[in-house]
Amino acid sequence: MDWIGEPLVGHGVTERRFDLEVDEETVPGILWSPEDATGTRPLVLLGHGGSGHKRMDYILSLARRLVRHLGFAAAAIDGPMHGDRVPGGTDLTLDRVRTRMNEDPEQTARRFRAIRKEWSETLTALQQVDGVGDGPTGYWGLSMGTVIGLPFVASEPRIDAAVLGLMGIPADARGESARSITIPVLFLVQWDDELIKRTDALALFDTLGSKQKTMHVNPGLHSAVPPAEFKASEEFFAKYLRVAATA
Amino acid sequence: MDWIGEPLVGHGVTERRFDLEVDEETVPGILWSPEDATGTRPLVLLGHGGSGHKRMDYILSLARRLVRHLGFAAAAIDGPMHGDRVPGGTDLTLDRVRTRMNEDPEQTARRFRAIRKEWSETLTALQQVDGVGDGPTGYWGLSMGTVIGLPFVASEPRIDAAVLGLMGIPADARGESARSITIPVLFLVQWDDELIKRTDALALFDTLGSKQKTMHVNPGLHSAVPPAEFKASEEFFAKYLRVAATA
Repeated sequence: MDWIGEPLVGHGVTERRFDLEVDEETVPGILWSPEDATGTRPLVLLGHGGSGHKRMDYILSLARRLVRHLGFAAAAIDGPMHGDRVPGGTDLTLDRVRTRMNEDPEQTARRFRAIRKEWSETLTALQQVDGVGDGPTGYWGLSMGTVIGLPFVASEPRIDAAVLGLMGIPADARGESARSITIPVLFLVQWDDELIKRTDALALFDTLGSKQKTMHVNPGLHSAVPPAEFKASEEFFAKYLRVAATA
Repeated sequence: MDWIGEPLVGHGVTERRFDLEVDEETVPGILWSPEDATGTRPLVLLGHGGSGHKRMDYILSLARRLVRHLGFAAAAIDGPMHGDRVPGGTDLTLDRVRTRMNEDPEQTARRFRAIRKEWSETLTALQQVDGVGDGPTGYWGLSMGTVIGLPFVASEPRIDAAVLGLMGIPADARGESARSITIPVLFLVQWDDELIKRTDALALFDTLGSKQKTMHVNPGLHSAVPPAEFKASEEFFAKYLRVAATA
């Protein structure tokens, strides 16, 4: 893991850019932690949505509140073909992403399969960092962050709780990843989502294997998740990750 | 409004039994408020579910947490043909309630129509009480508490926010009450509810006219609402009723 540039420190939060090599691919990431943190604390991995990147507004804001309010660490990496992994990647549109993905569907599929391992190796590397350590770990990702998060969370035993949503599966889908997830999940649905069918979103919630799962539904379009759900995300991680937290 | 017996005082909460005459019917109720409260504060009206009564476990517990955590007042009345309004009314079963209601459907319908006015007059009477006053007011009621709550909240302009749920309407219902409700609503659904069809519950949420509405869905049977949703109810009222609160 290579640290890139100098840490940014402000209002109690230290932000560090890193690059990690995974199978000859450079995975660009950011770690946020409390200023002067040492030892071990809960960590939340943040997966951005389609056309976004590791430091987009809601990722940065969620990372900072997890650090400031809870004393947790948070980390984000750029998704496949997003952010620093492609030219102009911090200024994408959903249309541009789709066009690029369709240009080479095989490479796109390969990159999406690879991200699961990239997240796992990122977690392994972060657990070696003083101030993070191998504490309780959560995953937060909506929309594309759930497309990536479902197989990652399903296959990664170190994840203790997850916030997912803005995604669905057809009611008759096998939903193997969703079915095999048994950790506590907060699942977010936008009732007037123009990208995800209501019945598909409900079917995905229904399929999740977790006994402790809660769905929060709010009116509005795909990207109009209300601020209250970011607060709810924070409270959810506070509840399920705080158990083993060290000050 | 007649106060019945002596107030119960414990752990900062004063509990007072009252009777109120509404159209020659005696409405038995309880008011909970902070010990030695004076002036005005937010008030939450609590409607119990079918076969329950004004002092059943979850009503008492919710009333006490609203008083202790938020400094609010809370009040509950016995529903039609429930609690102190019928012989053996604090020890009913759903079957016994149904049997009794079916014995005289006309009287049952009359009693259910009357409850809206009974709640409104109870609110008017409570607003005269020092320590309650005419502050922001919420309504909380699930299941039968929603059957009664929908027309009451729809017709009572003094209600500022409501928690409803465990109830549904057919997707093709007119849902006039639900449609005309425009205050913030937290709507609770039990995903495996054995009494309410999932599609009917979703249709009722969909029909609510409120812009600020949120649905929380949890796995489990009708009566298995998790403790987290009582905490969520408290936070919901804290958010929407606290604005004009007086210490």
